[in-house]
Parts: sequence; structure tokens; C-alpha cells
Amino acid sequence: MSNNRGYTLSELAAKVGGRVSGDPARVIHSLATLQTAGSGQLSFFANGRYLKQLRESHAEAVLVSDAHETDVQGVAVVVADPYLAFAELTRLFDWRLAVRPGIHPSAQVAEGVQVSDDAEIGPGVVLGERVVVEAGVSIGANSVIGRDSVIGADTRIEANVTLYPGVRVGRRVLIHSGAVLGADGFGFAHDKERWIKICQLGGVVIGDDVEIGANTTIDRGALEDTWIERGVKLDNQIQIAHNVRIGEHTAIAGCTAIAGSTRIGRHCTVAGMSGITGHLEIADGTHITAMSLVSRSITRPGAYSSGTGLEPHQQWKRNVVRFRQLDELARRVRKLEQALEHISIEGQDNDGC
Amino acid sequence: MSNNRGYTLSELAAKVGGRVSGDPARVIHSLATLQTAGSGQLSFFANGRYLKQLRESHAEAVLVSDAHETDVQGVAVVVADPYLAFAELTRLFDWRLAVRPGIHPSAQVAEGVQVSDDAEIGPGVVLGERVVVEAGVSIGANSVIGRDSVIGADTRIEANVTLYPGVRVGRRVLIHSGAVLGADGFGFAHDKERWIKICQLGGVVIGDDVEIGANTTIDRGALEDTWIERGVKLDNQIQIAHNVRIGEHTAIAGCTAIAGSTRIGRHCTVAGMSGITGHLEIADGTHITAMSLVSRSITRPGAYSSGTGLEPHQQWKRNVVRFRQLDELARRVRKLEQALEHISIEGQDNDGC
Amino acid sequence: MSNNRGYTLSELAAKVGGRVSGDPARVIHSLATLQTAGSGQLSFFANGRYLKQLRESHAEAVLVSDAHETDVQGVAVVVADPYLAFAELTRLFDWRLAVRPGIHPSAQVAEGVQVSDDAEIGPGVVLGERVVVEAGVSIGANSVIGRDSVIGADTRIEANVTLYPGVRVGRRVLIHSGAVLGADGFGFAHDKERWIKICQLGGVVIGDDVEIGANTTIDRGALEDTWIERGVKLDNQIQIAHNVRIGEHTAIAGCTAIAGSTRIGRHCTVAGMSGITGHLEIADGTHITAMSLVSRSITRPGAYSSGTGLEPHQQWKRNVVRFRQLDELARRVRKLEQALEHISIEGQDNDGC
Repeated sequence: MSNNRGYTLSELAAKVGGRVSGDPARVIHSLATLQTAGSGQLSFFANGRYLKQLRESHAEAVLVSDAHETDVQGVAVVVADPYLAFAELTRLFDWRLAVRPGIHPSAQVAEGVQVSDDAEIGPGVVLGERVVVEAGVSIGANSVIGRDSVIGADTRIEANVTLYPGVRVGRRVLIHSGAVLGADGFGFAHDKERWIKICQLGGVVIGDDVEIGANTTIDRGALEDTWIERGVKLDNQIQIAHNVRIGEHTAIAGCTAIAGSTRIGRHCTVAGMSGITGHLEIADGTHITAMSLVSRSITRPGAYSSGTGLEPHQQWKRNVVRFRQLDELARRVRKLEQALEHISIEGQDNDGC
Repeated sequence: MSNNRGYTLSELAAKVGGRVSGDPARVIHSLATLQTAGSGQLSFFANGRYLKQLRESHAEAVLVSDAHETDVQGVAVVVADPYLAFAELTRLFDWRLAVRPGIHPSAQVAEGVQVSDDAEIGPGVVLGERVVVEAGVSIGANSVIGRDSVIGADTRIEANVTLYPGVRVGRRVLIHSGAVLGADGFGFAHDKERWIKICQLGGVVIGDDVEIGANTTIDRGALEDTWIERGVKLDNQIQIAHNVRIGEHTAIAGCTAIAGSTRIGRHCTVAGMSGITGHLEIADGTHITAMSLVSRSITRPGAYSSGTGLEPHQQWKRNVVRFRQLDELARRVRKLEQALEHISIEGQDNDGC
Repeated sequence: MSNNRGYTLSELAAKVGGRVSGDPARVIHSLATLQTAGSGQLSFFANGRYLKQLRESHAEAVLVSDAHETDVQGVAVVVADPYLAFAELTRLFDWRLAVRPGIHPSAQVAEGVQVSDDAEIGPGVVLGERVVVEAGVSIGANSVIGRDSVIGADTRIEANVTLYPGVRVGRRVLIHSGAVLGADGFGFAHDKERWIKICQLGGVVIGDDVEIGANTTIDRGALEDTWIERGVKLDNQIQIAHNVRIGEHTAIAGCTAIAGSTRIGRHCTVAGMSGITGHLEIADGTHITAMSLVSRSITRPGAYSSGTGLEPHQQWKRNVVRFRQLDELARRVRKLEQALEHISIEGQDNDGC
């Protein structure tokens, strides 16, 4: 699967501003973990807990910081931030092919579409009227791009993605399979007996350098746009409701849902399966732990949580019953405190007699 | 994106049974919020909290109730229920095009299929054997309709939808991209060592006027049908297990999951990310708040919740530890109460000596 | 929809090692529940709670254990495990057709692909370079199989499934519509200001006899493979992150998410909407109840839970406030205990004077 020719350690070190401590001519063909790496493989050491693995690793070479140069059995490639250097080098070994420009004959291209000569349109792709596809774009098999949508340069859309009409995608965006952008926000007015649909007249705007996970859904706005700012990373199966705005460089893990009109700040992280209710404001630099329910705005950066911890089921059942009585329990404790205060005073009286 | 020609205020007022307080000849080209609306735009005022925005709005016209007619800077369109009137008018400004009858040459139509001359079948659509597509239906690009399925009149299926064989869809239904109807329910018998599949022999029935969100899944029944009654509104990424039945006009928000054979009543609302376990009965008019776990039947209408509120992470960690000890804590409080009762009695004795 | 010719009771009994107590020549055309079954229909009795339904059932025949042979109105088919026998017989009545070998003319087959003559490739399917499709495989309409993927014998892939490049699927696997296998794991290194993508260089391996639900996502590994072992059953909308490994015959219900590098043991069950955080080890034979958050490794088999139970919303609101004060409440109880101990001692002194 890997489509690389091999790189010398000096080539790799140059790419990440590193220094080779050993033979710079050795050739690396792939990346691996400390435990599994062997001949021709480069690994990295970024977490002190794995020092034993570092010392025992059979990797041809290891990316390390200055402090651990001498712990490497093979060749050390010394860099300021080994994890970051590793991330940057993964690109060289990726399985994705370079864009192969051209429109597959089975693709369906409607009137008024503009496709750059440098873009790749896969088999079975459907481009609606007036879609614009910029240079370096790749659109995977059987994806459907609704009319009047714009796909910015060097963006990659994987197979079976759906964009509704009027979605604007920035540059260097990566959209995974099964993602749906621009479906109707969930908006209805209640007419006593039944729900009357509020047609969703806004759009979706995706900033540059955004990644959108598999089967993630981002609804179009009711009147204005839903907006994912540049550098945002969204994992799989995330649900973004209408008119949500997510600030730059925020990262959200899988299966999280964000309800309508909520604004998430910049540089936030939201762990998986969290729920954020509608019309909230979440401050820049907020961190939400896994499976939390956020039902109030957060004005102060920091880490927030909700829920309870895991317990053996039988014990949990007893505690859950007590949770239902918690307010009453607190009132009983208050009464005890008052009674005891009373007794203490009386006790003092006793002492006094 | 908007495909409208503009409407005079008198035309719009007539559609919603309203009265124009000002120049009825003014032309509206789009809808907008109070804050952003300007010339040629109609807004609405439906929530007292936004009175300031109403008074400062530059909207050409605003839908208001009688009581707020004089708060409008532009023209007031006075109606009984401004939000409902707004919902009804959104249809005039929707981006969806009228159905363009015909079967795209790239669509694959199996034997015995019946497609109304008034239906639109998009590029790459696959219709299985004996599928029936009634008048006014639109099926989006690359959707797959399993054999023996029926699509009722005026239903709209967006791109990349999947219907398994034998799914019956009512009239005026809207199914969003990525939705999957009729996949196997999750049914297995355990044979000591391994799971034996129970083939799912039932179907799926979708009533009239249902909306189904993007990437929502509705499984086929084990022996009988899974049934979504008319007027039900399902948001994105909802999971409906086999043999669930959802009553008329119930609305369910995104990422909620309903386990097998549960029956949800009519006119219920379920907020996002809630979980409802299997074989339950939920009364008509029940409301479930966000991220709740419903593990018992609900016989009495009303609002129900579970979970805990959000807290700073460090504080939460301490409380979570206490939750694990909650049953024990309650027992200790009981002991204190008993001890105190004892002391009080003794105290009375002391007083008496 | 059912595609069967009818079976005599003696034929059916033979298939499940059962004994017919009555006329073995009667013909069964379909399966049904005790309550709805009638002439020509076979039902089963596997749960003591339904004894009344068994006695009143109009089923032509019922699968029962020895103990309930005389409770059947129609013909009893006596078997060791009626539920298991029922499961096995559902296969005879399934709506799925036998594989119809051949490649649909609208399918797109890249260079180097090997498709068995006994495999069925549906309309609009796209097979990437060097894909291998073994005998008896069926690939549903508009599914996309990335290059260098392998589909084992007798596997069935439904419509609109996406496999990224390099996914290896075992034999007799069933993958439902909308599932995405092999999308990038969610891996980024933080470079002060922005996230640097860690290209995901591993693959996905699916063992034999696995079932994967609709819209479930299984990410490819970062360096090594994500691995679903044989016999695992995954419901709809499950998210499996990179490098997760799930042990043989584990069953996971809908909407559960498992974060990166976690290893789940064999023969576990995870109920719906649970979240399991990353880098954990879950022991064989562990059972997680619905909507639980697992944030620590589990070393001892058994049932585990988290969360709180459902309550009326107003009562819940009061208890949630108290939960935030729970640590403080526990400290107050400790103080009361200490104070009371003190008083008791004093009380003893008093008694002594």
C-alpha cells in the first residue's frame, strides 16, 4: 500500500530540522512503533512512559529529543519535538496517491460546471449545475456535489460524500466518506396538531484546512450559514446542527453532537460522545471531557465534565436509587447539622452547670 | 441560491392570513433575522427576549402579533402566530427546485419497476425489481431503492440514500442523504460459543409527512414491521432499532437511539443524544431532555431527565468519587439520625434531672 | 418479499434436530410471533413470560422445549433450545436472494482487479486497482471498494458501503449500507497554533463471520491495523477508532463509540450508546450496560454501568444541583459523625458524673 521509494536519514532529518546521530545514509522505508519497528523502519519517542520500549527498540532509527539521544539503540534523529516531527514525516509514507487529473467518463457533470484541468473527478461522481472545482481537488467515487457548491483548491473529498446545493468548501480540506454537508437543519414550528417545516435557507461554509470525519453531518443554516472555521478537525459521526459556528483550530472527537446556533470558541477540544445544547457560547480554550453534557454557556476556559464514573452494576444500581433521593438527603444532613448545633449549645449549658 | 421572483407584502400577508400595516406593495426578496434584515427582507418577531432587536431592526417588514405592531420600524405584517407564519413563508424562498420529471440516462432501472411520468429519478440512481415510484417523487443522485419498495406521491429522497428491499414510504416524506432504511435489526441467538443470526423478515413502514434526517438508520423488523407514523420528524444520525413504533407527530432530535420493540407515543419530543432501551412503552406527550437514558416505561406524560450537570473537571472528579459512595453515605446519614434521636432523648432525660 | 416455497414440519424439524409432535406433513410458509401467527405459520416459545400467548396462539406449529410440548394448541416441534432453532430457521425465510454471479455493466472495474466468476457486482459499484473479490461475494449497488482491498468468500456488502484502500475483509462477513471502513483515524500533533495531521498508515482487518451495521465507521490504524476479530457483531452507527481491537464473538449495540487503541476482550457485550475511552483493556466476558462511560480498564469480568436513572425533570434539577455539592455534603456528614462521637463521649462522661 505504501507508495514510497525510501528516504535516507539525512533527507528525513532535513525535512524536520533534525540532526542525525549516526549513519545519515541509512534508508527508511516505513514508520513503525518502538515495539514493532525493525530494519529499515523509523520510530519516535514522545512519551516518557515508553522509555523501556525506546531502549529495547530494534528500529533502524528513532526520532528523539536531545535528552534521549543516548537511549537509542539504532540511529538517533534528534529533533525539538519528536511527535511533531513524526507527524510531519507520515505524509511521505501515506497511501494516498497524487491527484490524477481528469474526469472519469462515468461521472455526471451538469451544465455550467467549472472543473480545473488539475482536478480529479472519480467514477460515478455527480456534479450539479454551476459547481466549481478548483485546482488540485480530488473527488472520490460516487460522491454527489449539489449545484452551486464550490470546492477550494487542493481539497480532497473521499468516496460517497454528499454535498447539498450551495455548500462552500475551502482549500486543503479533507472530507471523509459518508459525510453529509448542507442537509436541512431541524427546524419546525408547531401548529397545535402537527409540525410545520421551516425551510432551511442558509448554507454551509467550511474554512481552509478543515478535516471532516466519516459519516459526520453538518446541517445548513436556517437563514444564515453554518460555519466551520479554518483548521477545525472533526472526527467521525459528529452532528453539527444549523447555524453552529466552530472557531479556528478546535478539535472535536467522534460522535459528539452540537445543537443549533451554538458557538464554540477557538482552540477548544471536545472529547467523544459529548452533547452541547443549543444557543450556547463556549469560550476559547475550553476542554470538554468524554460524554459530557454541556447545557450552559462556558465563559471561562478550562476543563469541564459531567456524568458519573463506571461501577460494578449492582453497586451502581444502589447508588442510582440514592441519586434520586439526593436533594432529600442533603436536606436531612442540614437538619442534622441544625439539631447538632442545638445539642452542642445545650451541651455547653450542661458543661456550665 | 434562492429561486424566487419576489413577493409583495400583500401577497405574503394573504398567504398567512395577515394584515399589512403600511405599504402593501413593497416587494420582499428574502427572509432574514431581525438583526441582519435590511431592504427587501422580511423578518419575524416571536420571542419577547428580542424586543430590542425588533425595535432596532432595519427589516423592510416584520411578521408580528397584534401587540407589537407599533414596535416595528418598517412595515408590520400582523398575524396570529408570527413564528408559524414565518415557517409557512419559508417555503416560498426555498432553494429546492420543482420536480423535473424524467429518468436520468445513467440511472439503473430493474425489471418490473413502475415510475410515474411526473417523477424525477436522478443520475446514478438504482431502482430494484418492482419498485413503485408515484407522482411528484424526486430521487436524488446515487440513491439505491431496494426491490419491492414503494415511494409515495410527492416524496423527496435526497442523494445517496439507501432503501433495502420492501420498504414502504408514504406521501410527502423527506429523506435526507445517507439515511438507511430497512437494514437488518440487530438480532442474534447465542449458541454457547457464537452468535447465530436471526434473519430479519419484517419491513419498514414510513407514514405520510415524515422527515428523516441525514445518516439516520431505521432497521427492518424481525418478524413484523418497524413503523414510523405520520407526521414524525427525525433529525440526523438517529438510530431506530427493529420493531420500534413511533407515534404520530413525535419529534426526535439528533443522535438519539431507540432500542428494539419500544413504542413511543404521539406528540412526544425527545431531545438530542438520548437513549431509550428496548421493549418500553412511552406515553403520549412525553418529553425527554437532552442526553437522557430512558430505561423504564413512562406511563405519565411530562418531562423526564437523567444524567448530571456540567462542572469544572477537578470538582467533578471529587463528586464522581462520592457518587460511588452514595449508598454508603445515605446509610451513614441514617445512622446519624438514629444516634441523634437517641441523644435527644437522653438530652431530655438530662434536662429532666 | 419472502422467497420460499414452503417447508413441511418434518423438513424443518430435521434442520434443527427437533421432533414433531403432531402431523409432520403440514407446510409452513412463514414465521411469526405467537400473537400474530396463524395458518401456515411457525412460531417459537423461548421466554416463560409468554406462556399465556403460547397457550392461546393460533400458530400452525410452535418450536418449544420438552417441558412445554403440551401447552401448544397446534403442532409442537420439540427442540433443545427453541430460540436457537428459530434463529436457524429464519435463514430459510430470508428475503435475500442467492448471489446472481456477474458484474453489472454500469460497475467500474479498475486495472488488476480479480473478481470470482461466482461473485455478484451490483450496478454503479466501483472497484479500485487490484481489488480481490472471492467466490460467493455480493457487492450492493453504488458501493465503493478502495484499491488493494480483499473481500473474502461468501461475504455480502450491501448498497452504498465504502471501503478505503487496503481493507481486508474475511469470509461470510455482512456489511450494511452506509458503513465506512478504513477512513483515517483521528490523529494530529499540536504545533502551538494548529493541528498537524498524522497520516494514518495502518489498515483494517475484519475477521470471518463478522456483521457490521448500517452507518458504522471503522477507522484504519495509525501505524498498525485496526482489527475486528471473527464472530464479532456490530450494530448500526458504531464508531471504532484507529488501532482498536475487538475480541472474538463480542457483540456491541448501536451508537457505541470506542476510542483509539482500546482492546476489548472476547465474548463481551456492550449495550447501546456507550463510550469507551482510549488505550484501555477490557477483560473477556465484560458486560457494559446502556449509555455507560468506560474510562478505566476492566480487569475482572462482570457487568458495569455509569450514569444516573431517569426522573421527572423538576426533581432531577434539584438532585443535579446536589450532585455538584456532593463532595461537600460528604465532608459535612463526616463532620457530623465526628461531632456526634464527641458528644457521645461527653454524654458518657455526663452519665458517669
